[in-house]
Amino acid sequence: VTDDDALGYDPDLMDAVAGLGSALRELVDVSVRTTVGAAELRTATAQARALIERLAASTRPLEQLPELDDIVSFRRVYSPVSGVGSALAPPAEFRRVDGGVTGSVTLGPAYEGPPGYAHGGISSLLLDQLLGTTSIAAGLWGMTVRLEVDYRAPVPLRTPLTLRAQVVEDAGRRTVVSGTIARADAPDRALVEGRGVFVMPRPERLEGYFGDITDASGRPSPPTRATDGTAVRSD
Amino acid sequence: VTDDDALGYDPDLMDAVAGLGSALRELVDVSVRTTVGAAELRTATAQARALIERLAASTRPLEQLPELDDIVSFRRVYSPVSGVGSALAPPAEFRRVDGGVTGSVTLGPAYEGPPGYAHGGISSLLLDQLLGTTSIAAGLWGMTVRLEVDYRAPVPLRTPLTLRAQVVEDAGRRTVVSGTIARADAPDRALVEGRGVFVMPRPERLEGYFGDITDASGRPSPPTRATDGTAVRSD
Repeated sequence: VTDDDALGYDPDLMDAVAGLGSALRELVDVSVRTTVGAAELRTATAQARALIERLAASTRPLEQLPELDDIVSFRRVYSPVSGVGSALAPPAEFRRVDGGVTGSVTLGPAYEGPPGYAHGGISSLLLDQLLGTTSIAAGLWGMTVRLEVDYRAPVPLRTPLTLRAQVVEDAGRRTVVSGTIARADAPDRALVEGRGVFVMPRPERLEGYFGDITDASGRPSPPTRATDGTAVRSD
Repeated sequence: VTDDDALGYDPDLMDAVAGLGSALRELVDVSVRTTVGAAELRTATAQARALIERLAASTRPLEQLPELDDIVSFRRVYSPVSGVGSALAPPAEFRRVDGGVTGSVTLGPAYEGPPGYAHGGISSLLLDQLLGTTSIAAGLWGMTVRLEVDYRAPVPLRTPLTLRAQVVEDAGRRTVVSGTIARADAPDRALVEGRGVFVMPRPERLEGYFGDITDASGRPSPPTRATDGTAVRSD
């Protein structure tokens, strides 16, 4: 048994993807803070285009899952919220706890809405993933059908945040989950509260939505009911 | 009167910032589609780090607005939804129309949630900005206090989308706005519906939240009630 077999993925490729993800997140961060002049920005643009060409040498089609992804265990390396390879993701980290899921995230200035604070829509993006992950951790894979977000106070940037959620209703195909965003140093004082309703699509809908999805080898691989939620750490 | 004076910003710098934003968006896009090996990813990572160093040569503090921003006219070049300089933004474009605001956006695979479709939280992010922009276009600047999102059908990637919203209640400091996300070729069939409540913070709250915000020259520049919504095109 190699490491590869035990993990279910190539650890060297995972390390390289996470390394690039991390560098791209720093690049996004500095790109909104830089005050270098137009000439320097244009030189940087030319360098970015060389980087694009290098990565574009070989690409996957949209309906083929990334090699490192595992749709059954919900390992999604390019998730725009939690993906280690995603330049869009802060990234948020989630782990299973007694009674639900907790997460942690710190948002830089690239996520700004009102000056100095997170964009309201970024809070709703975090909550959607937090609540969906909590539904998955409880054993139900579902798609969001309704999301309600109440904003109590602005969410500060560059401040460690704690995300917490639990299932409040579980009726088979339908789950209701509620959760909060708070400062990590005041986790019980919710800055934002969310409530999400998740429903597992019927089999015929699943086929219609995901019938052409394949894994990296080309084998059909539509998402189905979760058998395992290992994308959520259990530590 | 130079171009600079007429526009209220340096057009050459705007062009350079938008050019880098565009290249970084392509870089984010290709970074989730690439299938090059670990060695190539590590070379790309080293190149990205050189780019970070170039841009980090001179940066602004978090409380200082970017030089190209105008908080009064809501020109926000690094908005994570609509900013021309933001690598996180698709970017969405909004314009004022009779009775409200309409917008257009196309989402690439970096915004994926369920395979082949947009992340549910990305729809809520788009709606928060759409509804907030509609409130601003009606003359009221406010912060989101509640957002409700109903997901009717999954939002396809790589498909032109139409965003539409209108104010449904206007009670001075408080505005209620509703809006939809639909395919551009079927704009009346909502895939996602949203309703947002926006409230203008009281003056003492505004001071507490934004009292230390300055413009690029260091002059205090907290956001106040909108006098103009020129970030929303009127064409």
